[in-house]
Amino acid sequence: MKKILILGAGLSTHSLINFLLDNSIENDWFITVGDMSLETAQKAVNNHKNGIAIQFDIDDAVYTELLVKESALVVSMLPAKFHPKVAVFCVKHSVNLVTASYVSDEMQSFDKEANEKGIILLNESGLDPGIDHMSAMKIINKLKSENAQITAFKSYTGGLVAPKSDNNPWNYKFTWNPRNVVLAGQTTAKFIVNGQYKYVPYHRLFERIEKFEVLDYGEFEGYPNRDSLKYRSVYGLDNIPTMVRGTLRKTGYCKTWNLLVQLGMTDDTYTVENSETMTYREFTNSFLAYNNSKTVEEKLAEYLKIPIDSYEMYRLKWVGIFDEKRVIGLKNATPAQILQKLLEEKFRFEEDDRDLIVMQHIFEYTTKDNKHKTLKSSLVVEGKLNESAMSMTVGVPAAIAVKMILQGKITLKGVQIPTKSEIYEPILKELENYGVKFIEEETEN
Amino acid sequence: MKKILILGAGLSTHSLINFLLDNSIENDWFITVGDMSLETAQKAVNNHKNGIAIQFDIDDAVYTELLVKESALVVSMLPAKFHPKVAVFCVKHSVNLVTASYVSDEMQSFDKEANEKGIILLNESGLDPGIDHMSAMKIINKLKSENAQITAFKSYTGGLVAPKSDNNPWNYKFTWNPRNVVLAGQTTAKFIVNGQYKYVPYHRLFERIEKFEVLDYGEFEGYPNRDSLKYRSVYGLDNIPTMVRGTLRKTGYCKTWNLLVQLGMTDDTYTVENSETMTYREFTNSFLAYNNSKTVEEKLAEYLKIPIDSYEMYRLKWVGIFDEKRVIGLKNATPAQILQKLLEEKFRFEEDDRDLIVMQHIFEYTTKDNKHKTLKSSLVVEGKLNESAMSMTVGVPAAIAVKMILQGKITLKGVQIPTKSEIYEPILKELENYGVKFIEEETEN
Repeated sequence: MKKILILGAGLSTHSLINFLLDNSIENDWFITVGDMSLETAQKAVNNHKNGIAIQFDIDDAVYTELLVKESALVVSMLPAKFHPKVAVFCVKHSVNLVTASYVSDEMQSFDKEANEKGIILLNESGLDPGIDHMSAMKIINKLKSENAQITAFKSYTGGLVAPKSDNNPWNYKFTWNPRNVVLAGQTTAKFIVNGQYKYVPYHRLFERIEKFEVLDYGEFEGYPNRDSLKYRSVYGLDNIPTMVRGTLRKTGYCKTWNLLVQLGMTDDTYTVENSETMTYREFTNSFLAYNNSKTVEEKLAEYLKIPIDSYEMYRLKWVGIFDEKRVIGLKNATPAQILQKLLEEKFRFEEDDRDLIVMQHIFEYTTKDNKHKTLKSSLVVEGKLNESAMSMTVGVPAAIAVKMILQGKITLKGVQIPTKSEIYEPILKELENYGVKFIEEETEN
Repeated sequence: MKKILILGAGLSTHSLINFLLDNSIENDWFITVGDMSLETAQKAVNNHKNGIAIQFDIDDAVYTELLVKESALVVSMLPAKFHPKVAVFCVKHSVNLVTASYVSDEMQSFDKEANEKGIILLNESGLDPGIDHMSAMKIINKLKSENAQITAFKSYTGGLVAPKSDNNPWNYKFTWNPRNVVLAGQTTAKFIVNGQYKYVPYHRLFERIEKFEVLDYGEFEGYPNRDSLKYRSVYGLDNIPTMVRGTLRKTGYCKTWNLLVQLGMTDDTYTVENSETMTYREFTNSFLAYNNSKTVEEKLAEYLKIPIDSYEMYRLKWVGIFDEKRVIGLKNATPAQILQKLLEEKFRFEEDDRDLIVMQHIFEYTTKDNKHKTLKSSLVVEGKLNESAMSMTVGVPAAIAVKMILQGKITLKGVQIPTKSEIYEPILKELENYGVKFIEEETEN
């Protein structure tokens, strides 16, 4: 019997855990699920005969080592910063590791030892990063095999709300970690367009959007993500003239979100005086100049140069930033924490809501007989009653990778991400059973 | 003979060193001047019989301790981050310390031990911080003694160029550390107006300006500085409804500087690809969206919503950010470093230029017989041929403090700043001999 250790049993891990439990008897696996909360772990295991739930604390290094040592493979769904604390024992005791997080410098530093020990530390094996790499590499390798010259690659992903649940003025709900959404983009975006390097500071990010049409789901807008430049070498496209990766939102979201950024409400670097007893209206006023003859609404509209009767003002009002009754009730809070608290209520994802994953790759390339073509590859996944699209698209590819490693079908060693066909081909194939199917549209320019 | 150790002999320390050398014979002082560059130290000492120049490296802790130990007082004019490396030996060997820098948390941590050892660690004893504290406290204590109620205090200072040397379109030259000017304001400004807390993020700072008339020097504009809130308790004005500290520039500067901020050119957090071989025009273009039918100038004017024939555009052109011939020539440079290199040439302070220090305090208060008054207290100091106003106003107050400590006229112990009358009264009085004289204008509202 092979032992699998899963660390972290939060909402986003249910699809992963269920997949592995469902396959455990056939494959003779025994699965230990550890979480800070024993109850959360127990809910996830749900009394499955090949699983056990345990209370787990990553700061208990002795227990962590013990658990890792007796496993054949560990899946760390902990926050990314904790992965190295797991990886160190994986290399020490020759245990494979799978994560859905970006490879950090610290993770990369385990590469040599992992190779020597003959184990794989597979990262970026979820949705984004994960399915984006796999689906992109499949197309890139196909185009390369046809001797096509790829001149542009744009790749955008969004975690959104399905049309049937899309019933608020922002066309947005939190289907994922709200803090990450509030702080999104706070690093200069770097990309390249037609050979020109482009840098967009945070305070301009939500103005530098592009429009995307995705299948019959209508129009989306995308803003560029952190460092798209480093993915040129990851994808083997070192000299590509245009490369941008970004995040998708429904049209109009970015313009209004930018107003919150302009005010300074997403700042997480200092705490607001008296934040506990202040109202949301006073909070908003603290970003506007003093003026005793104008309302907060008038001052804001003037400061941000938007008409006071605009839809953006309506969205801001709806979200509650002008509320003069609602007290913040958070002690020594940063603006970002104060904003998050308000949005968590307004952007709440209800029990009967459905989420939506949208991904689009756009390739421009020249064929070997010198035709200029554009290839759009789009994925849309809607959530189901008991399984969000986010949980499924993050968890299932990672779970398939676990299965393939334990079945000996992935033989790569060291620190890896799923950009090699040995990994992405079978995963993408199996993912089709779960509705993860890219639709390609090709046009000649 | 009392030994004084001066660490750092850069441009800004000449007035300080000369003052102490000039007073050394009368007071029986021997002065050791240490600098990374022996030549710089030698120039500063200029063969004075009571002085000696030495090569000094703050990273050589053994030598630092030796030098501190044999001194009666140390003046650290090193960058602020190095002061604790000096202070630690000052408290160990009971040696007084004077700096012109803000009290850091680390410096504050020496307070208890300095008190026990019976020494003073006097900080913020230059211009700003320094003269601003002294002159403000003098007025505050006078108003308090008259039972007046202070309702507002605004205090702004600028290091500028004298009218006779004010001959470029920005009305600005570097009379001080260029790097500090380029990075100025990159922390959220915090202040209070009529009881309302106000927070201004960096990307809005240069739009949130106020106008100031200073004597017959015309109009200036001021933008708020970092954390004005903490100075309420420093000045004993804990419940004051309005308190703002800020920086002065000539009118129009902030609007144009803001354009550089908006582009992202003052960012110091990442390096630009190919910065060594790029032209300044390409650098500017890297902050603008790709468009092959518009010029860089057209794109910039449109993006920043300024007319292409505006004076702001003229200033940007003059400064060289559209130059298509000039290559940056800096390897792996940040945007801020690239901008600084350009400005160092364009904002160069020439040998025959004169600088200008401008400071203005504005107090609003209610007298005990209920009259509402405004008191403007203004200081303007012009530089001289061999002594900049900046060097004089930073160095002389610190030097006077040194004299008074060694003469036993300042008896305070522990970590101090010059907000107590024992310190500021005699220093302000002696500073008048150097032309540091505040002009007060009072009006009844």
